[in-house]
Amino acid sequence: MITEQSITPLLQETQLASASVRQLTDEQKAALLHRIADLVLTNAALILTENGKDLDAVPDGDPKKDRLLLNEKRIVALAASLRAVAQLPDPTGQLLVERTLEQGLQLRKIAVPLGVVGVIYESRPNVTLDVASLCLRSGNACVLKGGKEAYYSNTILVELIHQALREAGVPEAAVSLLPPDRSVVQELLTATRYVDIIIPRGSESLIKFVRQHSLVPTIETGAGVCHTYVEQSADLEKARDVVVNAKVSRPAACNALDCILVDEAVAPRFLPMLVADFTKWNVEIFADETAYPILLEAQYPLLQKAQADDFGREFLDYKCAVKVVSDAEEALGHIQAYSSRHSEAILSQNTVLIDRFLSKVDAATVYANASTRFTDGEVFGLGAEIGISTQKLHARGPFALEKLVTEKWIVVGDGQTRW
Amino acid sequence: MITEQSITPLLQETQLASASVRQLTDEQKAALLHRIADLVLTNAALILTENGKDLDAVPDGDPKKDRLLLNEKRIVALAASLRAVAQLPDPTGQLLVERTLEQGLQLRKIAVPLGVVGVIYESRPNVTLDVASLCLRSGNACVLKGGKEAYYSNTILVELIHQALREAGVPEAAVSLLPPDRSVVQELLTATRYVDIIIPRGSESLIKFVRQHSLVPTIETGAGVCHTYVEQSADLEKARDVVVNAKVSRPAACNALDCILVDEAVAPRFLPMLVADFTKWNVEIFADETAYPILLEAQYPLLQKAQADDFGREFLDYKCAVKVVSDAEEALGHIQAYSSRHSEAILSQNTVLIDRFLSKVDAATVYANASTRFTDGEVFGLGAEIGISTQKLHARGPFALEKLVTEKWIVVGDGQTRW
Repeated sequence: MITEQSITPLLQETQLASASVRQLTDEQKAALLHRIADLVLTNAALILTENGKDLDAVPDGDPKKDRLLLNEKRIVALAASLRAVAQLPDPTGQLLVERTLEQGLQLRKIAVPLGVVGVIYESRPNVTLDVASLCLRSGNACVLKGGKEAYYSNTILVELIHQALREAGVPEAAVSLLPPDRSVVQELLTATRYVDIIIPRGSESLIKFVRQHSLVPTIETGAGVCHTYVEQSADLEKARDVVVNAKVSRPAACNALDCILVDEAVAPRFLPMLVADFTKWNVEIFADETAYPILLEAQYPLLQKAQADDFGREFLDYKCAVKVVSDAEEALGHIQAYSSRHSEAILSQNTVLIDRFLSKVDAATVYANASTRFTDGEVFGLGAEIGISTQKLHARGPFALEKLVTEKWIVVGDGQTRW
Repeated sequence: MITEQSITPLLQETQLASASVRQLTDEQKAALLHRIADLVLTNAALILTENGKDLDAVPDGDPKKDRLLLNEKRIVALAASLRAVAQLPDPTGQLLVERTLEQGLQLRKIAVPLGVVGVIYESRPNVTLDVASLCLRSGNACVLKGGKEAYYSNTILVELIHQALREAGVPEAAVSLLPPDRSVVQELLTATRYVDIIIPRGSESLIKFVRQHSLVPTIETGAGVCHTYVEQSADLEKARDVVVNAKVSRPAACNALDCILVDEAVAPRFLPMLVADFTKWNVEIFADETAYPILLEAQYPLLQKAQADDFGREFLDYKCAVKVVSDAEEALGHIQAYSSRHSEAILSQNTVLIDRFLSKVDAATVYANASTRFTDGEVFGLGAEIGISTQKLHARGPFALEKLVTEKWIVVGDGQTRW
């Protein structure tokens, strides 16, 4: 493990290598990913041995262990995922604008690779292949900063990628694995000369650190504080199913429900309808002052009075805030104040109110009569995603292959000047 | 002048007002800009009086004076520019994606306003109207931090905007002018809750400060270190005209030429061809060791030996670096190392080399056989621009009205869930 050493020479090499990746054709890029998939399968035993070294360092029972773990089944899935990315359409080369300017200049704008993508992530070794495959597919080089605990797993995976790159005549530095030290992060975040974009994948604290220290433009794939508003005209049976799904189907996901807003006209009927399912899933409810007595009377077992900071909170757990509102305006106001602008839903049969909600709510994804759990690159038809962007520049919502590009203006003339 | 006071309440109001601006129709937004143009014309005398107060504070002969100055002619131009923006197509509302997902969910992606745009700029009062008009046209609210020296001019212009907003039933806070104190900048740069994007317009040091301190995503409209490569097959007469134009037509512009790269095979013929024009315009040349004796023999009067840091330098003046290269590879390598990725040109008749240059050079705009001076939103057919972006996310090259938007995913269902 190299430490305390500048990573700038490596970043420089990666930037030089990015020129080679950029020149690859659609077919060459797809073939490269299929070759990596082959190598991953034929070297499964070696990968498992190296992964074992990482696992040995983690005490039994630590939840990290499952995040780190690779096994035969997961390796097969990794290879399948590489082949799936290989089959996605090449996002580069598209002609975005074409026009002739006044003096006869030919103007075109085309989609081109970003160049060098930096990704900082934590323990899951599958991220190494996910990110490398998306970057290579889109003609980008990448710099990977994985977690210390996945050192041996990441190293063998990147060695296999390097083998495929060598065979394809592309410099190995096209996919560079950084030493797994925190100390290199600062250098990476200020390498504006060599790195075009940085994507932090992981905990809120990692994302916050990157946002505060990066001079390189970043895409934030941040927290989801998601609301579902049960408007009084809603079909309450369907509303119950949607709310239960949004809360319990995968509470650790960023698109999971955090706060139910319900019209006061239907709260006394609707809230008791949640009791059976929420009790089954052990969902802890933080109820506002109007919802509390209703749920108390319905004998909901896991009931607490909501504190101010239970609103605007991303629970990532079997926990849920509930607030009764007097009308759609109050619901919209609450969402405006507390949403993290990830995924927001209205359940209603009033088309005027639905349109108003979809138009007024400022979020990456807005829903009418569906679970917020659908926010996902694969589900939206974009293929594998790097994350869900909650910022507004460049990519909003599922951040997938199609957005790993930038634009380039090309002007061809015959000696034109502009005085 | 209010100082030392938190600007957060004002930012909050602006964010609330952004919801009103977002709801305006195409026609309402256009009418609003025409109304501001009317008010600017009918209040020309008042504007000139207030502008005079700003001018009085600047000593005669200071170049700031011209940047600050408004006169009848400039006011007419301001109004015309407002009307031109009014006539640009509304960039919001476009349907970008439409598909039906597996479970019958209707998915759409549409272009929507960003929300609140923050702009930090320096002394020119015309920026106030430029930015406000582009933001309002695209359905955005904006927060303006102008220079202290333009305080009276900016204040009267924003008062006229407020009058038009009031008449249109839009809260005045949709266009908010911040106190002209440096102290408010830090608060603005960390207001991630209320401001969606910050654009610094001005000097390199302002841009650097914003990049280092902003937690709000920014668009850098940065420096242009622009090269023009005279390849040996170039039509040298045309090459001379292009090079002279790129250097002298407006040297203070970011798209002006900074460094000529010339093939050694043609350097002895080409460089002396520049002598007449460059002498006329008093262009100071910083020549590398091969170019120096050629220009010395041609008796170029303003000749110096280039120092290492003359390459990669943005001159913004009648100054130019010259380097002789052995071939296109060396030219590409030099550009890769020294370009600020703004505008780069090749002058050549070799179509293979032209294609190689246009494809390999990593810059916002690449040219074959034309002056880099064409890099401009108006020239490219985009209408008024906020600046030229040299970063790769969101907007690259001319950053105009069409990019003052983000995307929003809209999902409409009938009770669908995802387990």
